[in-house]
Amino acid sequence: MRVIATPEEMRAWSRTERQAGRSVGFVATMGALHVGHRRLMETAAARDDAVALSIFVNPTQFGPNEDLDRYPRSFDADCAMAEEVGVEVVYAPAASTMYPDGYATYVNVERLTQGLCGGSRPHHFRGVTTVVTKLFNAVQPDRAYFGQKDAQQAAVVRRMTRDLDFGIEIVVVPTVREASGLAVSSRNQYLSEDERRRALGLSRGLFAAEALWRAGERSPRTLTEAVRERMAHSGFAVDYVELVDADEMTPLDEARDRALLAAAGRLGETRLIDNLILDTEGAERPGPDPGTRP
Amino acid sequence: MRVIATPEEMRAWSRTERQAGRSVGFVATMGALHVGHRRLMETAAARDDAVALSIFVNPTQFGPNEDLDRYPRSFDADCAMAEEVGVEVVYAPAASTMYPDGYATYVNVERLTQGLCGGSRPHHFRGVTTVVTKLFNAVQPDRAYFGQKDAQQAAVVRRMTRDLDFGIEIVVVPTVREASGLAVSSRNQYLSEDERRRALGLSRGLFAAEALWRAGERSPRTLTEAVRERMAHSGFAVDYVELVDADEMTPLDEARDRALLAAAGRLGETRLIDNLILDTEGAERPGPDPGTRP
Repeated sequence: MRVIATPEEMRAWSRTERQAGRSVGFVATMGALHVGHRRLMETAAARDDAVALSIFVNPTQFGPNEDLDRYPRSFDADCAMAEEVGVEVVYAPAASTMYPDGYATYVNVERLTQGLCGGSRPHHFRGVTTVVTKLFNAVQPDRAYFGQKDAQQAAVVRRMTRDLDFGIEIVVVPTVREASGLAVSSRNQYLSEDERRRALGLSRGLFAAEALWRAGERSPRTLTEAVRERMAHSGFAVDYVELVDADEMTPLDEARDRALLAAAGRLGETRLIDNLILDTEGAERPGPDPGTRP
Repeated sequence: MRVIATPEEMRAWSRTERQAGRSVGFVATMGALHVGHRRLMETAAARDDAVALSIFVNPTQFGPNEDLDRYPRSFDADCAMAEEVGVEVVYAPAASTMYPDGYATYVNVERLTQGLCGGSRPHHFRGVTTVVTKLFNAVQPDRAYFGQKDAQQAAVVRRMTRDLDFGIEIVVVPTVREASGLAVSSRNQYLSEDERRRALGLSRGLFAAEALWRAGERSPRTLTEAVRERMAHSGFAVDYVELVDADEMTPLDEARDRALLAAAGRLGETRLIDNLILDTEGAERPGPDPGTRP
């Protein structure tokens, strides 16, 4: 497995792959890889001939008081996992390569970035879309894989990819959960044992609302209140609980099939997010994913 | 010569060219082609194996009270000129293809877009960088050719291309002038005969300042005043005259080699811009370009 540090080398690799008639799949990460990332890489490896992984803790998507400095870093373990699942190249540029002195260009998706996480993290998505544009231009993949866990990010990246004519297919991969139901996240490692127990209030709140929805409840207020209540009961400072259109991220008047129920809150210092798509087909089910059961 | 209307077809063409080992040169225009565009296409054809031209009057770079509706359109004549100079493909997407309902993504270069034309045209460069990103993603060229006449645009596009890791070489081609010294521009055709005579105040002002600079004058104030005076004398409503760093577009305290002297103003309804690079090597000379002498 190769490790590449510059966009020029990355493009050269990608060009060689495509000229050999091999499709390129891409997974963008900030490292600290867990079973959720592993699922993204496995999905890419199953579908594409060659998989590139990026590991870059992107400063422009962190706010001034957020956890950039303490964000977990585990480069060697990350590379070991990537190699294991068949990743061919890791793109790991330095921050000074990505944002040299005089850097001035930002990509912004309007509208979709205003609500949900955009409310409390005003420049977050601008940082995400900017770095993803740079990564897309370096890796030039055929397909890029993002997790449903970051539902708003996936919708924003899909919109950007379509709007800017990238010609890259965005594949959204279902959230991986622990046996307890907790959505896997790099930030889970911030949690104390007590917080980790209380964190279940978030996923259980979502599952409770989903059960109401399956029983016929269609009021966004009732559904979001069910989540809010369980989160508050578990000690979360609730940031938001909203029922929105899964593509446009706009609030809905009534729950409908494929609506997104999304929530965020803080446990102590740690901000957690999670979501469910309300799906009559049951594509997204509460409970552990068999592939990640311990 | 092919005419292509969708980014998918454009990418397919470009991919085929590159797979055949041919380099792709690209010239982005809003049509109404003149000898300035012709020079861009000829420069591209001399350097690259295959040349793509885009013709798209981009609504997002016009302000609400600007000349979008009356902007000159001459598609058939444009295609004839393109074919004559060896362009292989014209990319001419519809506005509804470029900006469909729900479009939400914009690319913005900060800093460099604040002064000069950015002062009186606040969203202009955001429109330019957004459309150029889309065109780059569709055409995927090796090199793109822009005119020095739009010096700030060239600097902004170069900055964006570097910042976003496009891996495309930006080639800036010297301004083409009429025998009178007037810089060739699509907007010149708005001018009445009287205005066309008075328009010379702009280029002559720049040449006068350049003569002062060659004689040793280094004060930005004196140099810009020389331009301003001649423009005002010819009946221009001066928008700006500034001496700036040619890459960063920041005002200079003292004239130095490779500084950009840029000016803009209105004659009646028509806004004209022009500039000179103050160059001891004399790369940029006042007076007609032999290639465009009538």
